[in-house]
Amino acid sequence: MPRFKLRIEYHGTPFVGWQRQDNGISVQGELEAAIFRFCGLETTVTAAGRTDAGVHATGQVIHFDLDREVSAERVQGALNYHLKPHPIAVRTVEIVPDDFHARFSALGRSYLYRIVNRRAPVAIERERVWWVSVPLDAEAMQAAARHLLGRHDFTSFRAAACQAQSPDKTLDLLQVTRTDEEIRIVAEARSFLHHQVRNMVGTLKLVGEGKWHPDRVKAALEARDRAAAGPTAPPDGLYLTGVVY
Amino acid sequence: MPRFKLRIEYHGTPFVGWQRQDNGISVQGELEAAIFRFCGLETTVTAAGRTDAGVHATGQVIHFDLDREVSAERVQGALNYHLKPHPIAVRTVEIVPDDFHARFSALGRSYLYRIVNRRAPVAIERERVWWVSVPLDAEAMQAAARHLLGRHDFTSFRAAACQAQSPDKTLDLLQVTRTDEEIRIVAEARSFLHHQVRNMVGTLKLVGEGKWHPDRVKAALEARDRAAAGPTAPPDGLYLTGVVY
Repeated sequence: MPRFKLRIEYHGTPFVGWQRQDNGISVQGELEAAIFRFCGLETTVTAAGRTDAGVHATGQVIHFDLDREVSAERVQGALNYHLKPHPIAVRTVEIVPDDFHARFSALGRSYLYRIVNRRAPVAIERERVWWVSVPLDAEAMQAAARHLLGRHDFTSFRAAACQAQSPDKTLDLLQVTRTDEEIRIVAEARSFLHHQVRNMVGTLKLVGEGKWHPDRVKAALEARDRAAAGPTAPPDGLYLTGVVY
Repeated sequence: MPRFKLRIEYHGTPFVGWQRQDNGISVQGELEAAIFRFCGLETTVTAAGRTDAGVHATGQVIHFDLDREVSAERVQGALNYHLKPHPIAVRTVEIVPDDFHARFSALGRSYLYRIVNRRAPVAIERERVWWVSVPLDAEAMQAAARHLLGRHDFTSFRAAACQAQSPDKTLDLLQVTRTDEEIRIVAEARSFLHHQVRNMVGTLKLVGEGKWHPDRVKAALEARDRAAAGPTAPPDGLYLTGVVY
């Protein structure tokens, strides 16, 4: 029963999210279907991060077991073939020990959030960024982001549906940088609460447009109340970029 | 009759190309339709470069006349509103003198060609790059590109359908750079023949994969025979990035 670890990329827009659901196609479901078409095996695929509908990945990590010896190279070629025409690509495949677990072995996760900040709508990058037409002050957003670093109770940035046992998380990095029209927000932590990145970005956007002083983000965090923070940013701009083991 | 100069962006995949045609939607047709919805005027829009089906633009320049005074800002807002849901965006609008002509006043055009060179297919950037799975040597491609710089008879890189009066063109820049998985080819000239950039890229790809020595590109150019050069690269990777006046 060899175990395979895959790094995968997907465009999240056509999917109901990572997880199999009855109301549409999922990344998990299409991967499991591709494995079945490849070798006739019904198996379950486990991911490091269960991304929501519309959220993308350039570095999602998954694992699954097969019932026979197959080379990593063959798994990559076969799955990329059988995944067509879905926008999912297998970037790398490794054979790993049986105790590797894509979700529970993960020591860190990295997300990128992309905002295009200009008057004109986006055409080429549609579905791939959050278009914000009001001018945003990236330096103010960065100043606000500093209040969220470290270990905190992130209840104010947690989705109601979040299944985590504790709202306490340690945010290792939250960095806002601007290059011309694009603002990039990089977030790193061992793990995140449901919607945490999008809720932090939606709150930083209020700072960026001048509706909030950067210090209000500290107050929002300390309130431990979802209503104290800003709205949830759309999924379009969010990318799971990497998982550390 | 004020004349307007617009810088526009579009994702080329859903269009039959810039030019109005009977067999599908065109960028020109949708812009003219948006102008009509905005102010009821039937007008003709002229572009600096008549891009082919599937070719994108981040810096296409167009002009048209209106029969009344309208602010540049209002034109931008109205056209972006009326262009929905097509992936066309008006980035800037200026009012220009009557003798400005998007095509004939242009002194230079810049194109970018994007190749993603990796074993895994592309998911997020699908339709937006040329995916090449065989490893390409970007330095060899750059060495080959040097042979094309300057004034030449570019018959070997000219589409059969090209309507230019002369095959003589001056190529000012053709630069190949690699960053991780992506190879970018930037081309600049006063003007290009039909398919010239895609034919040059298709030829450089043969050098990159080691099928051709870089010097063979010089021989292909000197042959003045389309059959002596490489195939036409797909439209997906090509962007009209800017026009100089």
